[in-house]
Amino acid sequence: MRVLGVDPGIAITGYGIVDFAGGKFRPVTYGCIRSAADMSPHLRLNKLYNELKDLIVKYHPQCLAVEELFFNRNVRTAMSVGQARGVIILAAARAGLAVYEYTPLQVKQAVVGRGRADKQQVQYMIKMILNLPAVPRPDDVADALAVAVCHVNKNSGLAIK
Amino acid sequence: MRVLGVDPGIAITGYGIVDFAGGKFRPVTYGCIRSAADMSPHLRLNKLYNELKDLIVKYHPQCLAVEELFFNRNVRTAMSVGQARGVIILAAARAGLAVYEYTPLQVKQAVVGRGRADKQQVQYMIKMILNLPAVPRPDDVADALAVAVCHVNKNSGLAIK
Repeated sequence: MRVLGVDPGIAITGYGIVDFAGGKFRPVTYGCIRSAADMSPHLRLNKLYNELKDLIVKYHPQCLAVEELFFNRNVRTAMSVGQARGVIILAAARAGLAVYEYTPLQVKQAVVGRGRADKQQVQYMIKMILNLPAVPRPDDVADALAVAVCHVNKNSGLAIK
Repeated sequence: MRVLGVDPGIAITGYGIVDFAGGKFRPVTYGCIRSAADMSPHLRLNKLYNELKDLIVKYHPQCLAVEELFFNRNVRTAMSVGQARGVIILAAARAGLAVYEYTPLQVKQAVVGRGRADKQQVQYMIKMILNLPAVPRPDDVADALAVAVCHVNKNSGLAIK
C-alpha cells in the first residue's frame, strides 16, 4: 500500500509518501511545496497543482489522505486553505487516486494511540514509526506523514499503539 | 473583451460569459454546473473542473472574474466553498486566463451604481444591461453575470449608472 499524505496550505503544503508492506512502514519521500506571498493567488494554486501532480506521476501512490480541518481561525483563512485543499484533492482525483479524509482526532489516535496527544508526541511517533533520522521539518511535513500513517492504520488491520 | 464570471459553490456554481465590444454588452452563454450531494467531494470537484474547462475551451474567454467572499457563515462552509473556488481558479490559470477578484461592494457599485443595492436590483440591472428575456435563475447565474459585468466596467472605462 502506497499512500500520499498531504497537509494543505497556501504558503506551505506538506507532503509525505509512505509504503506499507509485510507489516512494515517505509518512507518513500517527503517534503513541502512552497509559494511566495508576492505571487498571484492563481499562480500559487497552479504551482501547487503542478508540483503535486509531478509527485503523483513520479511515485504513483494509490490514494491521497488529507486531514479534515475545522480550525478556529477566521473565515478568510478557511477560504484560502480551502482553495489549496480543493486543488490538492483535484490533482488526486484527476490522477485516479482514491481520496480519504481524517479528523485530527483520528490522526492522533492512529499515530499515538490517543486523541489528546500533543504535536510533539505525534512528531516523535512519526520519527519512530518511519525510522527517520530526525523529526521532519517544518511541522507541515510531519503532519502530512501522520495522516498517511493514519490511513494505513485504518485500512491495513494494523493497530499502532 | 470576453469575460467569464463565476459564482463558486460546491452544489451549484453559476457561470456567465459576456462580450463587450463597441460600447455594448452581449451575453454569450450562462448557466450553472451542479453536482449531487451524494457524490464524493473529490468527484464533485473533478466534475466542476471538467465542465468549467470545457466552457473555457469552447468559448475562450480572456479572463475569469470571481467574487471575493467573506460571508458570515461558518468555517466549514467557507472551507467547502474555498475548495470549489480553488478548482475554478485553477481551471482558469491552467488555460492561461488572467484572474480578477471583486468584493460584493465592487460588484454592486459596478452593476447598480451603489454598494448598498439589494439582490433584486442587481438581478434587474443584469437583465437590462444584457438585454435578457428574464432574470436568470438560479441566483448563482445572475451573480456570475454580475461579476463579469463588474470586470468590464472596471476595465473598459465604461461607467454604468
